[in-house]
Amino acid sequence: MIDPGLFVERDSAPDSEGKTVALGAMRLEAGSTLPSVRLAYQTWGRFDGENAVLVCHALTGDSNATSWWDRMVGPGRPIDTDRYFVICSNVLGGCQGSTGPSSLAEDDAPYGSRFPIITVGDMVDAQARLLDHLGVNYLAAVAGGSMGGMQALEWTSRYPQRVQRAFVSASAMRHSAMQIAFNEVGRQAVMRDSRWLGGDYLPGEGPDDGLSVARMLGHLTFLSPGAFEAKFARRLQNKLVPDYHLGIEFEVESYLQYQAGKFLKRFDANSQLILTRAIDYYEGPNFSAASAKYGFVSYTSDWIYPTSMSAEAHAEAVATGRASFHREIDLPYGHDAFLLDGELQGEAFRELMTS
Amino acid sequence: MIDPGLFVERDSAPDSEGKTVALGAMRLEAGSTLPSVRLAYQTWGRFDGENAVLVCHALTGDSNATSWWDRMVGPGRPIDTDRYFVICSNVLGGCQGSTGPSSLAEDDAPYGSRFPIITVGDMVDAQARLLDHLGVNYLAAVAGGSMGGMQALEWTSRYPQRVQRAFVSASAMRHSAMQIAFNEVGRQAVMRDSRWLGGDYLPGEGPDDGLSVARMLGHLTFLSPGAFEAKFARRLQNKLVPDYHLGIEFEVESYLQYQAGKFLKRFDANSQLILTRAIDYYEGPNFSAASAKYGFVSYTSDWIYPTSMSAEAHAEAVATGRASFHREIDLPYGHDAFLLDGELQGEAFRELMTS
Repeated sequence: MIDPGLFVERDSAPDSEGKTVALGAMRLEAGSTLPSVRLAYQTWGRFDGENAVLVCHALTGDSNATSWWDRMVGPGRPIDTDRYFVICSNVLGGCQGSTGPSSLAEDDAPYGSRFPIITVGDMVDAQARLLDHLGVNYLAAVAGGSMGGMQALEWTSRYPQRVQRAFVSASAMRHSAMQIAFNEVGRQAVMRDSRWLGGDYLPGEGPDDGLSVARMLGHLTFLSPGAFEAKFARRLQNKLVPDYHLGIEFEVESYLQYQAGKFLKRFDANSQLILTRAIDYYEGPNFSAASAKYGFVSYTSDWIYPTSMSAEAHAEAVATGRASFHREIDLPYGHDAFLLDGELQGEAFRELMTS
Repeated sequence: MIDPGLFVERDSAPDSEGKTVALGAMRLEAGSTLPSVRLAYQTWGRFDGENAVLVCHALTGDSNATSWWDRMVGPGRPIDTDRYFVICSNVLGGCQGSTGPSSLAEDDAPYGSRFPIITVGDMVDAQARLLDHLGVNYLAAVAGGSMGGMQALEWTSRYPQRVQRAFVSASAMRHSAMQIAFNEVGRQAVMRDSRWLGGDYLPGEGPDDGLSVARMLGHLTFLSPGAFEAKFARRLQNKLVPDYHLGIEFEVESYLQYQAGKFLKRFDANSQLILTRAIDYYEGPNFSAASAKYGFVSYTSDWIYPTSMSAEAHAEAVATGRASFHREIDLPYGHDAFLLDGELQGEAFRELMTS
C-alpha cells in the first residue's frame, strides 16, 4: 500500500552549522582550471581515525544530510552519527555554498557561462581535498543515492586506498540513452528560456520559466506511476467540476507548479545544467583498480534508475573480483524511495558495514 | 530484438487528395459555441452501405491515415481499403486542415486564445457530422490508437446505434495522474514561453522554444527505454570524445532536437494545449449505453499507456455486459508500437471484424 501522505521534503532550511573551506586551484578532468574552489560541508560525530563516512548528495541536494537523508543519517540511524564521523559537502558545481556557476569569479561577477564543464571525478577530487583538510585519510564508507551513488562509485577507483566500502543506492554506473534524454529535455527547457542569456543572467533575473519546466520534468521521474496515482488520482484542484481552461484543473498540476516555485528559491539554473551534464558523461568506475566492498540497493518501482542498472553494476563488480551485494527492495515510491526508506536500505547499509 | 532502424516517420507530406467540409456551428460540451466548424478528411475505397470504418488519429496526426498508419490502413492491409470504405478526418482542435486555434475566426484573425476548450466528445460530434455529410449512418468499426482510441471508445457510448465495433489500441479510458502530469509539463513549456502571448501569437511568431521542449518530452514517452538504448546507447554525435560543452554531445540529444525542429514546421502550439487538455479531461465511455463489440490492444513495452490500462477498460466493458477482448502484444517499441505493428495488431483487428 502506498501512503499518499508520504512524500519527500526536499527544501530543507539551510543549516547554520555549515562551514566552508577554501581548497585552492583545481585542475579539472576536461582540461581547464578553476582558480579557487570552496566547498560547503557539515560533519557530525567524533572522528576516531577509522570511523569516517562520507555521504554524497543527489542532483539538487546540499551538505545538510541529516535533513534530506534523515531516515538514514542521524543519532541511532543506520549511518549513525553517534558511531561514525559523518561528512557531507555540497558538490562542486552546486549552489548551496560550494563553488559553482553562481559563485563569484575573481572579477566579483558570477561565473555564469565561464564556469567550466565538470565531471563526477572532479566532484570526488574536491571531496578528497576536503578530507585532507579534515585530516581524514581513510573512509570506512562512502554512501549516496542517485548522483550520490555515482560519486561513491567513483571514489572506489579514483582513491582505492582511501575507501573501504561503497554504498550505492538507486543509482547507475552510467546513464542509459533514455536517462540522458530526460536530462537533455530539462537542459533545453533552461537554455531555450530567453532569460538564460547563454548562462550570463544576473542573480534574481535567471531563466525561472525554463528551470520550472526542468524541475517539473524532474518530479515526473521521482515518483512511480503508482505513487502519483495514490497521491493525486484524477482529483480536481479545489473544485468538483472542471473550469475548462488552460490554468490549473487537476491537483497533480498544482503540485508540479508548487514544487517548481519552491525550487526556484533555492537552486541555480546553471547548476542544473552543469550537474546533469556531469552525470550524463559518467562512464562508471574502474572496478579492477578498486579494492572497496560494494553494497548496491535499488527499488522495484524506480523507473528512472531501474533496478536492472544496479544489478549490472553489481555483476560487473563481482566479475572484476570485487566483494559486492545487491539488494532489490520492493517499495512503491519510485526513485524517491531512497530518500524515504530508512528501514530496508538501512539494513543493507548495516550489512555492508559488518562485512 | 529491437531493430534500431525501425522508427516512426510522423511527418508525412500533406495529401493533396484531402477534402474539407463545412459543418456549421457547433455547441461544445463545455458550454460555448463554435460558429463555424470545418473538418479536413480523406476517404479510401467504395461505400456499400455497411463497410464504413472510421479511423481516428493520435495527438498530432492528420487525415492521411494511409501514411501515419500505413501498416494498418491500405490495400490488402488489415483495415483494407479494397474492402472497407475508410474515413479519416483531422480532429476538431487540430491544425492539419480542421478548425482549431490557428484557424481564422470571423474577424480573419486566428482564434488563438479565443478558441474554446474542447473535449473528446466534441471531436466525436464533429466526426458524426462528417459522416452525415458523407451519407454514412453506420460504422462497421471505429478504430484508433492513443488519443484515437479514446475517440473510438467515446463513439460507442455517444452514438451507440451507429457503431458496431470499436478497435482501441495503446490507449486508456482515462488518464492517470502521471499521464496528466506529463501533459501538464508539456503545456507549461509552451505557456511559459514569452512568445506564447496568452495564445495570441501571430502565425510564424509562436512559442517555438516551448513547443520544442514539449515535443522532446513527447518523444521521451513514445519509445521504451530499450528502444532508446537500441537506437542510441551512449554514442556521441559525430565524435569519439566529448567536447565538454552544453551543446549536443550525445546522439540522442541530436535526435530529440531534430524531432522538435521537424515538429515546429507542421504543428501549432495552441493545438498542443487544446488537444492534451481534451484527453486529460476524458473520463471514458458509458459502457452500459453502448452496444458495440470491443477489441483492445496494448503493448508490453508501452510505459506511458501501460497495458494495465487496456486490461482495465476491457474488464469494465465485460463487467457491463459488452462483448470484448484484449490482446497484449509483446513488442519492444514502446508506445510507438501501435504505429509500427501491422501484423499482430492487424490480426486483432481482423478478429474483431469477424466477431
